[in-house]
Amino acid sequence: MAKPAPRSPLAPAGFPALPAIGGVRFATAAAGVKYADRDDVMLAVCDPGTVVAGVFTRSATRSAAVLDCQSKIDGSGTEGAAILVNSGNANAFTGQHGQASVDAVCAAVSEATGLPAARVFTSSTGVIGEPLPHDRIIARIGDLAASLRAEPVEPAARAIMTTDTFPKGAHQRVEINGQEVSIMGFAKGSGMIAPDMATMLVYIFTDAKIARDTLQRHVSEANAVTFNKITVDSDTSTSDTVLVAATGAAGVDIDTATPDAQRAFADALHAVMRDLAHQVVRDGEGATKFVTVAVSGAANDDDADRVARAIANSPLVKTAIAGEDPNWGRVVMAVGKSGAQADRDRLSIRFGDVLVAENGWVAPGYREDDGAAVMKHPEITLAVDLGLGGGTSTIWTCDLTHGYITINADYRS
Amino acid sequence: MAKPAPRSPLAPAGFPALPAIGGVRFATAAAGVKYADRDDVMLAVCDPGTVVAGVFTRSATRSAAVLDCQSKIDGSGTEGAAILVNSGNANAFTGQHGQASVDAVCAAVSEATGLPAARVFTSSTGVIGEPLPHDRIIARIGDLAASLRAEPVEPAARAIMTTDTFPKGAHQRVEINGQEVSIMGFAKGSGMIAPDMATMLVYIFTDAKIARDTLQRHVSEANAVTFNKITVDSDTSTSDTVLVAATGAAGVDIDTATPDAQRAFADALHAVMRDLAHQVVRDGEGATKFVTVAVSGAANDDDADRVARAIANSPLVKTAIAGEDPNWGRVVMAVGKSGAQADRDRLSIRFGDVLVAENGWVAPGYREDDGAAVMKHPEITLAVDLGLGGGTSTIWTCDLTHGYITINADYRS
Repeated sequence: MAKPAPRSPLAPAGFPALPAIGGVRFATAAAGVKYADRDDVMLAVCDPGTVVAGVFTRSATRSAAVLDCQSKIDGSGTEGAAILVNSGNANAFTGQHGQASVDAVCAAVSEATGLPAARVFTSSTGVIGEPLPHDRIIARIGDLAASLRAEPVEPAARAIMTTDTFPKGAHQRVEINGQEVSIMGFAKGSGMIAPDMATMLVYIFTDAKIARDTLQRHVSEANAVTFNKITVDSDTSTSDTVLVAATGAAGVDIDTATPDAQRAFADALHAVMRDLAHQVVRDGEGATKFVTVAVSGAANDDDADRVARAIANSPLVKTAIAGEDPNWGRVVMAVGKSGAQADRDRLSIRFGDVLVAENGWVAPGYREDDGAAVMKHPEITLAVDLGLGGGTSTIWTCDLTHGYITINADYRS
Repeated sequence: MAKPAPRSPLAPAGFPALPAIGGVRFATAAAGVKYADRDDVMLAVCDPGTVVAGVFTRSATRSAAVLDCQSKIDGSGTEGAAILVNSGNANAFTGQHGQASVDAVCAAVSEATGLPAARVFTSSTGVIGEPLPHDRIIARIGDLAASLRAEPVEPAARAIMTTDTFPKGAHQRVEINGQEVSIMGFAKGSGMIAPDMATMLVYIFTDAKIARDTLQRHVSEANAVTFNKITVDSDTSTSDTVLVAATGAAGVDIDTATPDAQRAFADALHAVMRDLAHQVVRDGEGATKFVTVAVSGAANDDDADRVARAIANSPLVKTAIAGEDPNWGRVVMAVGKSGAQADRDRLSIRFGDVLVAENGWVAPGYREDDGAAVMKHPEITLAVDLGLGGGTSTIWTCDLTHGYITINADYRS
């Protein structure tokens, strides 16, 4: 096993003080799925009345756990819910054994918690193609169910990590009709590392009371502009999962709140999801730069998204950023290859506040030193205006460095 | 300027002995566009009766020279044709100055050769965003026109190089109705290097007599399965150009030949284009492995192409190959993210002759040592069968190494 990578230089100062959420309790344990000397299983149990919404990878080769979650996520059960996550083994591409392992784990959690199996959601992250040693997980479920507590949350965030260099948490509080609602969550994700499959797993909890369909709509909308707008290396996991559970313990009903209050709740959820999404990029393998690619002036939002992704996924743009090279020619190249409608002579490009190119050529006042100064910052915004219409998109990514190659090529399984 | 990279380990033993083509003459000169102490301008002149076909980058930000070629390529002139190429400056994203430079160069070539400007095709490759110093090129055109000769061809192949580590040539002879026809060509392309734009330029010449529309059809068909099936880093140049000129000097008319003879000509053209396309991949920046990704059993050819490109462009697959890691899980991941129809349980994967995975899991007889042995070869085939239908696609690519990062990130402009 390769040595653990040092904490990302883009990591936040520390893990935030996450509040307890009424109706949610956590426990972690060391099941020895793959890692030694650390907790690798996390159980979260939510009280009766909890609704759960989620979004999942669209991969055609998604894992058994994802398929199982998808079959359950629309369920209307109100008995509560449990989430069981293991790290160290993705239980992906394990043939028919995959679903059997998921069923066995769900049955054990159901028995230990009294919840029906239809209300037990699981995720697995780690090695692909090896059978999940689910007996080791099941052996710890009794202990997990007996040691549930509302806080601290950090051990739960740590137990789901694989090659992450730091645990990722975020929270928001919002006042609705004079009462406080909390939204808290944690995530793992760091790109991919040999021989593991990358996976982004996200679990968010709120004490708001909200109808499942309303929650699903808010989650899907926020997901489209948060987790679906990040890219480390353009590769997509078989296991990506975002689950959001609302317990209702705060006694605040979002569905009957004022439109302003509903908007405040949605904004807070969005903020938690964006914060966690950014932290995943900040833990991108080998990353030394956090990059915001902001595209405007496209013929429509889809075109803007095409351009932003072409820039964010371009190995040449990403290596230029790693080299602190204000190489705007590579941005022009990426715009050109994106497939979006573009007109060379209407295109303008900014690196940070510096206007680099406009009207189809380098900007008259542009000095290379100004561009180079922007590129030295750890956080960089590349803004492209296509000058055609009102379409916009923002994508967050990181640079492509020797560290990425070292992590992904130099380790031999 | 970074030191020139050493000759690619995947390069052929040497430049092939290219035959002279009746009706085609070359000259090269040192114009000092950017490089010192080397030829950086190439002029090819084809005799009256020559037809020219071509394919070009689909980039929305394509260069002035490409736009100019596209405006001329359908022309039916029979006065002959000239091709003028400079390296060191791409004349791309140079605003309205770009077309003015192209016009000036074309006018000078027209004057020196007696050909109409509509029969003068130009390409430029090198730095982007800097005005082309076309006066330096024009100053050498008289000398170029005065020193044209049919061979050797290698100096022409060398003059168009930028960061290529070796010149690229290929040829085929084919017998048609008992007479010999030759097809010969050369190319440049190596990915991209700071601060240049990558460009793939290809020039092919034949002494066959063939109608322009027939030639264009053959070129477009062969291009779809050769140059359009290679990828180094998924990035697309603003300047990619393939020009094919047929002089008719061999006195063999392809259009009136037997169907078998027509097929033989098309096959020979295809072989030259495939050979040159492979050489571009073999000169991919930092490449240490030449990789054939062969997808079969897809629902249709488009789906097969999606899967093959997802594998060939995946940074995780490419870094695994660099690390000689038979990481088939990353291939599964790439299939899943491709957007093509796929069924985990029908998927099979081979590394070379080794069956790695089938029926949704690792193959029962697979041994990691067998996979690892395949990965040590400099030439590797990854074969994926989706088990769904008759769709196939083959893509050629290379691995992603520290060399790529060094070339593209470590050099500061």
